[in-house]
Amino acid sequence: MTGQERSEEKSECVSLSPMMEAVPAPPESERVCVFGTGDLGRSLGLRLLQAGYGVVFGSRRPHSRSSLLPHGAQVLGHAAAAQSAHLIFIAVQREHYDFLVPLANQLKGKVLVDLSNNLRKNQYPEANAEYLQSLVPGAEVVKGFNTLSAWSLQNGPSDANRQVYICGESVEAKQAVIAVATKLGFSALDQGFLSVARELEDFPLQLFPQWRLPLRISIGLSAAFFFYLLIRYVIYAYVTQGEDISFRIMVSLANQVCPIVSLIMLSLCYLPGVLASFLQLYRGTKYRRFPNWLDRWMLCRKQLGLLSLGFAFLHVLYTLIIPIRYSVMFWVTEHTVSVIRENRTTMFDTTTAWHDDSYLSLGILGFGLYVLLGITSLPSVINALSWREFSFVQSKLGHLTLLFCTAHTYLYGWNRFLSSSTYKWYTPPGYMLCLVLPSVVLLLKLLLITPCVDRTITRIRQGWERGADQRNPKDSQPLIP
Amino acid sequence: MTGQERSEEKSECVSLSPMMEAVPAPPESERVCVFGTGDLGRSLGLRLLQAGYGVVFGSRRPHSRSSLLPHGAQVLGHAAAAQSAHLIFIAVQREHYDFLVPLANQLKGKVLVDLSNNLRKNQYPEANAEYLQSLVPGAEVVKGFNTLSAWSLQNGPSDANRQVYICGESVEAKQAVIAVATKLGFSALDQGFLSVARELEDFPLQLFPQWRLPLRISIGLSAAFFFYLLIRYVIYAYVTQGEDISFRIMVSLANQVCPIVSLIMLSLCYLPGVLASFLQLYRGTKYRRFPNWLDRWMLCRKQLGLLSLGFAFLHVLYTLIIPIRYSVMFWVTEHTVSVIRENRTTMFDTTTAWHDDSYLSLGILGFGLYVLLGITSLPSVINALSWREFSFVQSKLGHLTLLFCTAHTYLYGWNRFLSSSTYKWYTPPGYMLCLVLPSVVLLLKLLLITPCVDRTITRIRQGWERGADQRNPKDSQPLIP
Amino acid sequence: MTGQERSEEKSECVSLSPMMEAVPAPPESERVCVFGTGDLGRSLGLRLLQAGYGVVFGSRRPHSRSSLLPHGAQVLGHAAAAQSAHLIFIAVQREHYDFLVPLANQLKGKVLVDLSNNLRKNQYPEANAEYLQSLVPGAEVVKGFNTLSAWSLQNGPSDANRQVYICGESVEAKQAVIAVATKLGFSALDQGFLSVARELEDFPLQLFPQWRLPLRISIGLSAAFFFYLLIRYVIYAYVTQGEDISFRIMVSLANQVCPIVSLIMLSLCYLPGVLASFLQLYRGTKYRRFPNWLDRWMLCRKQLGLLSLGFAFLHVLYTLIIPIRYSVMFWVTEHTVSVIRENRTTMFDTTTAWHDDSYLSLGILGFGLYVLLGITSLPSVINALSWREFSFVQSKLGHLTLLFCTAHTYLYGWNRFLSSSTYKWYTPPGYMLCLVLPSVVLLLKLLLITPCVDRTITRIRQGWERGADQRNPKDSQPLIP
Repeated sequence: MTGQERSEEKSECVSLSPMMEAVPAPPESERVCVFGTGDLGRSLGLRLLQAGYGVVFGSRRPHSRSSLLPHGAQVLGHAAAAQSAHLIFIAVQREHYDFLVPLANQLKGKVLVDLSNNLRKNQYPEANAEYLQSLVPGAEVVKGFNTLSAWSLQNGPSDANRQVYICGESVEAKQAVIAVATKLGFSALDQGFLSVARELEDFPLQLFPQWRLPLRISIGLSAAFFFYLLIRYVIYAYVTQGEDISFRIMVSLANQVCPIVSLIMLSLCYLPGVLASFLQLYRGTKYRRFPNWLDRWMLCRKQLGLLSLGFAFLHVLYTLIIPIRYSVMFWVTEHTVSVIRENRTTMFDTTTAWHDDSYLSLGILGFGLYVLLGITSLPSVINALSWREFSFVQSKLGHLTLLFCTAHTYLYGWNRFLSSSTYKWYTPPGYMLCLVLPSVVLLLKLLLITPCVDRTITRIRQGWERGADQRNPKDSQPLIP
Repeated sequence: MTGQERSEEKSECVSLSPMMEAVPAPPESERVCVFGTGDLGRSLGLRLLQAGYGVVFGSRRPHSRSSLLPHGAQVLGHAAAAQSAHLIFIAVQREHYDFLVPLANQLKGKVLVDLSNNLRKNQYPEANAEYLQSLVPGAEVVKGFNTLSAWSLQNGPSDANRQVYICGESVEAKQAVIAVATKLGFSALDQGFLSVARELEDFPLQLFPQWRLPLRISIGLSAAFFFYLLIRYVIYAYVTQGEDISFRIMVSLANQVCPIVSLIMLSLCYLPGVLASFLQLYRGTKYRRFPNWLDRWMLCRKQLGLLSLGFAFLHVLYTLIIPIRYSVMFWVTEHTVSVIRENRTTMFDTTTAWHDDSYLSLGILGFGLYVLLGITSLPSVINALSWREFSFVQSKLGHLTLLFCTAHTYLYGWNRFLSSSTYKWYTPPGYMLCLVLPSVVLLLKLLLITPCVDRTITRIRQGWERGADQRNPKDSQPLIP
Repeated sequence: MTGQERSEEKSECVSLSPMMEAVPAPPESERVCVFGTGDLGRSLGLRLLQAGYGVVFGSRRPHSRSSLLPHGAQVLGHAAAAQSAHLIFIAVQREHYDFLVPLANQLKGKVLVDLSNNLRKNQYPEANAEYLQSLVPGAEVVKGFNTLSAWSLQNGPSDANRQVYICGESVEAKQAVIAVATKLGFSALDQGFLSVARELEDFPLQLFPQWRLPLRISIGLSAAFFFYLLIRYVIYAYVTQGEDISFRIMVSLANQVCPIVSLIMLSLCYLPGVLASFLQLYRGTKYRRFPNWLDRWMLCRKQLGLLSLGFAFLHVLYTLIIPIRYSVMFWVTEHTVSVIRENRTTMFDTTTAWHDDSYLSLGILGFGLYVLLGITSLPSVINALSWREFSFVQSKLGHLTLLFCTAHTYLYGWNRFLSSSTYKWYTPPGYMLCLVLPSVVLLLKLLLITPCVDRTITRIRQGWERGADQRNPKDSQPLIP
């Protein structure tokens, strides 16, 4: 028997000895216990030590892994560790919770913080914290800290992961956990009873929940317009002229789908705000909830806008590489050669030059504003803006961006709107289809900013209600629309 | 009379009954009251509940809107609510403050937190908080929390809106408010007496105050150079050759104005630092304040730099679309056609190729550094840099960017500086004018980094004073220039 | 003698009077003292005042500079100031610490917070805080706050500079400092005994320590490939054909070096993760530390990736300016002229068009993903992501980016891989060399995501150990790989 094994055995002996219960270590408020010596347990222990707590790790083999544990922490057997502190963090997988059952005596009245997460949603019938409570009914289980990674625990709280959500039945237990969280630099939010644990356990499994709908919309739109343009463009050329221009799929077609989807998504980003204003105008009050679909739509405006910016970015790149494409360089040479061979004289058309340059210039300015909107969507930039500044950028500059991009598209169409050759197989080209929505949004917005409508909407947002001026003047709050 | 109306009446009855004053609800330190059930009031209430406070809403019609109020909050009539807590948040518009006058008795000795804001500056003769104090002289009014939106209250504090400013006459009242703010996760800063309230109420109405001067400068410069170039370029061509090249306004002219303004703004961003160094050299101390104009200038360097980056970005886009412009493609074809028709032989000029590629390459590298500077201006990136790293990026890399961009412009001019045909109507072209300022800044900077000057300036920044070495050696602090 | 000088003398008199020690000012817990009236001392004082502390500045000439000091602070002579508070911030340069020696009596038992920094590493044999302790053995020296600048003190803590590191011998003294730091809004981390002070003093002198290795790698790779391509390209042309194409160094050569270095750096960013997985597979456990070189490599993956993005950005710009280069425009014209003069007929090649467009399209999509990765590397964006989201973006999207960029390079090579003319002087072109590493990384990654290997690696990351299933089932923690 090696020395290490012996000391290990000894500590286990001690921790299970009934003698110990008679003479428990004095419960120190400044000592906490951590069960589990994995990454999360170790990071938590280190952080607790740095915040000035005494840390006792509970381990089945107290000496086997102490080299990895943070310096300054004590390692005891589970029972001894449990007795040494009032608050016990359970940084152990749910599958191994049954080792806590024999410790029921030592855990009586203790606060157990369940930090566990699952690998996927609905992995188990009940929440891990509820399962833990059922195993150790004498202890006070608090769910919490599970949204933090070992990484953020070790490096300390930073902006977005400063918030820690907790829930549990006992108010005192939750207060104790909140106190520790606060001392570690986190800001703990009590979410209610233990029945909320399931929700908290689903948090870290979320994968961009707010991006799903916008992503689906953008993929759907891209696919629809891709096939529409494929038919109008590549298949039409093949059927009517027997030409194979399939190579245009890679760049030309992509460069039509991108701006179309981008413009539609941008108008989808500003449409719900306009609809909400009209709904408030119609209802004459801001105190009634919006329909659910409108609420959901408004909540994903940022994502719609950012995806739209992504498509615009691709459109810009696809446009800028036009002159270095083989097919374009071939066509330019062919054009010059044909001018010479056929001895044609080409005349410079100032109108075309004006039109072409204006169209490009509007696109550039629109894209510049687009990028500005994107930058002000970064969390740290948003935080640095006052509410009025944020609303100015996202609303005023946002609609200006939409105006520029819509004008860019109209100028692109230019005089082709009236030419019948534009309407191959009686279908309008893609850019015409995509102009419908932004035009509607801009028209509605124009209506909203006419002085008389604007005055009414401002009053409604300040709490005024139509036909109810005398009813409740006191509870309104003008600041937040 | 419905049940709801009755209970409403009852609560109002109770709250106004003089009996109640004899038997007040026990003042719980953990219970706070919120007057006003608008967005802000509701968000504040929710947040207070999450932080573990008991929340009592005061409402004239306690039951009419309770469905919108956060779950767990109590709703009482104003008087009853006022009696139930020591701290009362007033989330009501200033126009309705008079409802508080009859509550004077219940509000005596209470702490009233005025959260209100106005719609525009100088809307009222005195601050809302001062007006509130005059209405309820027996209460202790504290101005605070008004810089927060309902949004940030509901979602918890994040980086930049973590700070809450308060002011008021009573130190105890302010301490009570600071305690609540801290528990909500905010960091409250005492700004002094109630007379500061007006300033605090103006905070949320600010619209980019630090951007005004830089924006005006950039608009002024753009307009000036636009008209200057319009005359030299478009009008000159029309007057002397009768040519209409007005179409060039949209892209060619914009692409001259953008880089010119960008370079001037970039040098304006680095000029004040250089001037400040020379002023410190001249004065022989860092302990005298800079003149006000220099202080203001230095405070908007970041904005000058970012606007400059915006113009550079537009310049890049305007440059990259050159080959897809109709007028350029026309000219290229024309050129080729004329080479053929006139049977000219063109010779490849290696010097021109070197010059052209160097000029483009310097521009690309300069823009790359520019973007790097822009990224390190993002709040979250700045925060992640140590002071030395920030100073390295913004000063060393900044001046390198200026050097690259200036060299790019000199190379653009190249041998045209000496050709008399460059000086149409005896005026220099735009790029020459814009080279003056950056050249001066770079020359001055060059002087500053010569060893002997650098040594003196470093000593001054470490607290040394010329002719005063023995006077006050102890109070200097070397770290922050 | 002016009034000011007199009161100054008086305060100095008082502060040195032995009488005073008998009747010290009552030690108020809410009063702190600041020695040093430089930028840092003043900013600290202002911040302390705003947090509600009483602030006493200690100065040798208490009245000479009071105009610069924050309003509300008291200024006394050093001795009087020292007696007025328990906690004394020493915002003075180390060279002037000797003025504290005569104050030994007044400083006995006080907590001295050493805020000083040095101008360079190893400037002094021992840490400033240790030197201070040796000068005033009766006081309790705590090192701390030195990572903050006057700027961040004055503007309050924000995300990344919220953490304050302290160290010292006395636990009570450190607790007192932690209390002040917490009240100022900082989160203080106890780093241990005073011997750590040296480390803390080196913190603010760091200049991108994590960027050094990646920067050196990128510079080394750039230089190596630059000379390799210079020989293969420019010197080869000169030697074999006597042609001077040296002008191509500025753009063409740069545009070959950039994408090569970018692709290699991107694969270097993902290689360590793949290696670590294979090491875990081979060892059958995640509980053994990685070798040091692998640890260091993994810690600079973010920097490798961002530098790679920088080179990709330059590559994009260098590519987009191709058509506006003099040499390219000359060549295009020459080509057209030669087609006419030699009366050649050029045939449009659909395969080339497909290949060319695909190659460009893959590059654009790869660059788009690259930029997305870059944006999600911003501190504030990382913080807003859950751990699962971050891992999805950086691992899944990261490898997809690598796949796209590698495919882009393969398509660039296309059918030239087999042509012997490609191998000038028997050396492969640069893009072939740079394909080796990404191909290896992608192959290894492909192996790792085959179902059977993936299952094993997932189990290992959940804490499973090969051949040790029964040994320690309880301490594993599945969440953090």
